[in-house]
Amino acid sequence: MKITDIELYYLALPHITDAADGTQDTLLVHIGTDAGIEGFGECDASPLVSMAVYCCPPSHSNIVNIRETILGETVDTPEDIRRIQAKVWARGLDIEQIHHAYAGADIALWDIMGKKLGQPVYRLLGDQKAYPKRPYGSVLFGDTPQQTRERARSLAAAGFKAAKFGWGPMGKGTLEDDVALVAAAREGMGPDSEVMIDAGCVWGHDDQAALQRARRFAEYKITWLEEPFHPHAIEAYGRLAKHSPVRLAGGEGSNTVRFAEDLLMHGGVSFIQIDAGRIGGITPAYDVRRLAEKHGAVYVNHTFKSKLSLAAALHGFAGVERFGYLEYPQSGSPLAENLCEPCLQPGSDGLVRLTGAPGLGVTIDMDTVKRFRRPVRIEVGGEALLEG
Amino acid sequence: MKITDIELYYLALPHITDAADGTQDTLLVHIGTDAGIEGFGECDASPLVSMAVYCCPPSHSNIVNIRETILGETVDTPEDIRRIQAKVWARGLDIEQIHHAYAGADIALWDIMGKKLGQPVYRLLGDQKAYPKRPYGSVLFGDTPQQTRERARSLAAAGFKAAKFGWGPMGKGTLEDDVALVAAAREGMGPDSEVMIDAGCVWGHDDQAALQRARRFAEYKITWLEEPFHPHAIEAYGRLAKHSPVRLAGGEGSNTVRFAEDLLMHGGVSFIQIDAGRIGGITPAYDVRRLAEKHGAVYVNHTFKSKLSLAAALHGFAGVERFGYLEYPQSGSPLAENLCEPCLQPGSDGLVRLTGAPGLGVTIDMDTVKRFRRPVRIEVGGEALLEG
Repeated sequence: MKITDIELYYLALPHITDAADGTQDTLLVHIGTDAGIEGFGECDASPLVSMAVYCCPPSHSNIVNIRETILGETVDTPEDIRRIQAKVWARGLDIEQIHHAYAGADIALWDIMGKKLGQPVYRLLGDQKAYPKRPYGSVLFGDTPQQTRERARSLAAAGFKAAKFGWGPMGKGTLEDDVALVAAAREGMGPDSEVMIDAGCVWGHDDQAALQRARRFAEYKITWLEEPFHPHAIEAYGRLAKHSPVRLAGGEGSNTVRFAEDLLMHGGVSFIQIDAGRIGGITPAYDVRRLAEKHGAVYVNHTFKSKLSLAAALHGFAGVERFGYLEYPQSGSPLAENLCEPCLQPGSDGLVRLTGAPGLGVTIDMDTVKRFRRPVRIEVGGEALLEG
Repeated sequence: MKITDIELYYLALPHITDAADGTQDTLLVHIGTDAGIEGFGECDASPLVSMAVYCCPPSHSNIVNIRETILGETVDTPEDIRRIQAKVWARGLDIEQIHHAYAGADIALWDIMGKKLGQPVYRLLGDQKAYPKRPYGSVLFGDTPQQTRERARSLAAAGFKAAKFGWGPMGKGTLEDDVALVAAAREGMGPDSEVMIDAGCVWGHDDQAALQRARRFAEYKITWLEEPFHPHAIEAYGRLAKHSPVRLAGGEGSNTVRFAEDLLMHGGVSFIQIDAGRIGGITPAYDVRRLAEKHGAVYVNHTFKSKLSLAAALHGFAGVERFGYLEYPQSGSPLAENLCEPCLQPGSDGLVRLTGAPGLGVTIDMDTVKRFRRPVRIEVGGEALLEG
């Protein structure tokens, strides 16, 4: 089976706001083969910048675009997917965006491989069983403790047994302000639910400020404190981890496997959060899952796109029962909500399950694709390198 | 003084070959201000992918293009350059290519600041003196030991007291083949010159293969063994560093300051090689220089573009006498060789010096720019986002 076709779809809402909402646009990658089997993948990345990685003119032996590297490649076994990835990494060694851009293609190749072999992706990765996962609601803190308490009550009323609160006023006021926000989240969720706190990188490199908070937040039995620092402040993570009474989470900014390994080994995180749509697809996300198993950490997905991305993320770690959490994109746009079927809704027990269908197990709705597609045209030296 | 204008120039030779020669194309960034002072910078990156980072539509609060973030910004002091960089990092947090793309703009801002304040850039960075540096010739191994010996003799005859040999057949044959290449390089350069060996990432993650070589190469008194592993194989670097009788060098793949810090702290390199045109400009390159001072390593530039890039690199570490090496791009294309004046040729003592002129101290030749410019046009949703 050979790769014969790569199509890129830049999908976006008509108006993009400055909100921290990743479901306002997306880059969908379609790969076709000479066997007639096709697959889709999704990148969590700037669509235009990533599209340029598929069509950029070569600069030298280490800057060659993805299309040129993978068109015509043979893809018959899971090992082929790893071989092609290594080739893309090598030929794109000096393209920084290579991981964000290639993620969609890697996911599409796993989709194709599963359809060809009649197996869900998690089985191709070597797992025998896909365990159900507990989705956690993910919301912003309210502007006040009162608003935060109300949001927490709504989530609890909707049946969530776990919820993450983040960003907003956290870290912008006094220590007592921060504590009041966490107290309100706990109060609204009730004493038996899990509460996660996402600090939104607010303390920069200041581990003392973060430690003061962690000590106070511990009274409210939070599951984790997420991204207290700038993503690159690994040394600050490591210092905080030595003294913090609450466990740390981070990693959504991992563009490479080493970034995640660095955070696991030197940042002392207990939860490593990986976005398969950023790190280069299911293949490297699975590599980080293996590192998490090795280092005794808990692997958690980071997902803020459509359910296609959620399925891709879930296949990578569904096989490990201990990795029980699932970040579940909630307040999705009409683009993200309608892009594919099935929607991976939680079951009556509140847990989310893969369907067991071959490949990713989701189907793209081409009407939604047509409705939200933005045409792109890139010309260099008078020649059209990309159109569509 | 406000930033009023950003112009991007994609320059390239008519025919790009698959050689490992980074001087075949470049991205030149021009910034204009309302004070009439202008500056230039250069990126070592895919020009098209990086141009997309200057014009991509916003996706959400963390994907905003560079042009939108910096146009209209006030730039009166060196602190403004740091403030603007932090803003670009924050607004571009989820654009993987942000560092490669912004590098040229950061360099242009330092050029502008120096011209405004009538100071060379190294002084604005806090250094009182710019020390001359010893350039090392950088060539590929010949296909045979005999060819390698001849190349080394030519370099020695041209006056080079230090030379780096890399890639080619290194690591592709037997241990004895590799040793023969190093022996030939040493023989051709003579006993008193410095010889560096660049393994071109050839041993992947295999520290035992690299250690065998390091032990044998030590007989030939090499200054360093560069990039024995894949850039992300920091753990392998660390294991090798513990036992290697020769010192290790690496870091040209550093797209972030943390990548370099990781290599310094956990990879055990003695020489950290940074490309200001990749890591995001002079500002983060200088941050790594400070880390090298802190960790007792030697900072070395990585440069494979025009002398504009060489000047930008040199300003960042000229002030530290102990950092005595200078990677000096040699076999440059007509594009790289003619892009700017002066050419920073070695003096009669074989050393390279900055000129002391304000800013970067080099002037762009606009005839060369016109001769090699490739027009680019990017349209999204029928709207031209970039033309020129």
